[in-house]
Amino acid sequence: MKKTQFKGSVILNPVPVVMITSKNLKGESNVFTVAWTGTICTKPPMLSISIRPERLSYEYIEETMEFIVNIPSQKQVRETDYCGVVTGRKNNKIKEMGFTMNKGSETNVDYIADCPINIECKVKQIIKLGTHDLFIAEVVQSHVNTNLMDEKGKICFEKAELINYCHGEYFPMNETPIGKFGFSVVKNKNLEKEYDIKYGTKGKSKKFFNKK
Amino acid sequence: MKKTQFKGSVILNPVPVVMITSKNLKGESNVFTVAWTGTICTKPPMLSISIRPERLSYEYIEETMEFIVNIPSQKQVRETDYCGVVTGRKNNKIKEMGFTMNKGSETNVDYIADCPINIECKVKQIIKLGTHDLFIAEVVQSHVNTNLMDEKGKICFEKAELINYCHGEYFPMNETPIGKFGFSVVKNKNLEKEYDIKYGTKGKSKKFFNKK
Repeated sequence: MKKTQFKGSVILNPVPVVMITSKNLKGESNVFTVAWTGTICTKPPMLSISIRPERLSYEYIEETMEFIVNIPSQKQVRETDYCGVVTGRKNNKIKEMGFTMNKGSETNVDYIADCPINIECKVKQIIKLGTHDLFIAEVVQSHVNTNLMDEKGKICFEKAELINYCHGEYFPMNETPIGKFGFSVVKNKNLEKEYDIKYGTKGKSKKFFNKK
Repeated sequence: MKKTQFKGSVILNPVPVVMITSKNLKGESNVFTVAWTGTICTKPPMLSISIRPERLSYEYIEETMEFIVNIPSQKQVRETDYCGVVTGRKNNKIKEMGFTMNKGSETNVDYIADCPINIECKVKQIIKLGTHDLFIAEVVQSHVNTNLMDEKGKICFEKAELINYCHGEYFPMNETPIGKFGFSVVKNKNLEKEYDIKYGTKGKSKKFFNKK
């Protein structure tokens, strides 16, 4: 395949898109949207968000070193967009959106109860980068809509109707997986059959070579 | 909505899933898969990946401070999984996968030409976290399949058939967007009509309140 060179921006896609809530020392809350986020460590559980220093949320989070990641569902795509475009310096976005806010349990931040998943975080380190600074944070608690939990305590993400972000557009998560961690090396015949049905690999060559 | 508390892991989903190539000072190449990655800065363009210190790729990348992010298409979901499960200490994964490798232009690392997008990176900082360490890197070049570029030099990601990763499963990217950055505040009537058709918001209330 012929390749074209492309410089000057990060073209890692798709990425998550989440709403971040924070509260300053005066008790004022704000919300804004970030796509520059990711999981960075399994134990202790850690994630990062990147924030432009001119953002109001930068001030709030730097002051308290706490924030909450609110993962939106597809129903909240307009709200997610709006909170990334409009500044909290001029608009009370939480009020405008009509969000129901709950108190966090391990931080002094409120979270958006309307979002299916909320992740409370405490900032450990802020690293200056350029247009954005990197906030490295530990996850101290999560809140999940109870109707997403199965009887075994597993989270059914497929019911959450999540979004991702790709090159400036919001996409609904696809509902049908095409593989599972470890499915390429499964040796148990019954499990292989189960995966073949679930992931549509039945009758397909399992060889990696010449598969392109 | 009633909430259930959940502790001990990062439930940020969906996230990207990519194959990382690297080359040690002896000239040996390796590939492994990471989902703990994200964009962290717009200018300079930067991204991060998190790596377990016991990984062979950790050694290679620490030695040369370079790596390439290879974004797989849906055709490479089995390869993506395999490279995340099997260690380069025992298997020559690049050979096993039958990958076609191209030389990077700004690094001494080779990239997987079969992947639609490849991002060359130079590591600026390694931050010790826990099970994983965070590699903060600057993007120095990207290579994109020429058939993904339109006549204006824009990348058509929708043609790349990308994957994302959610709670242990691989999902194909949905093809139909439900919104675009800034669509919630558009004031131009013609543009609003265009968005209404494209994003299925025609005839729907544009009010944020009472939309749940």
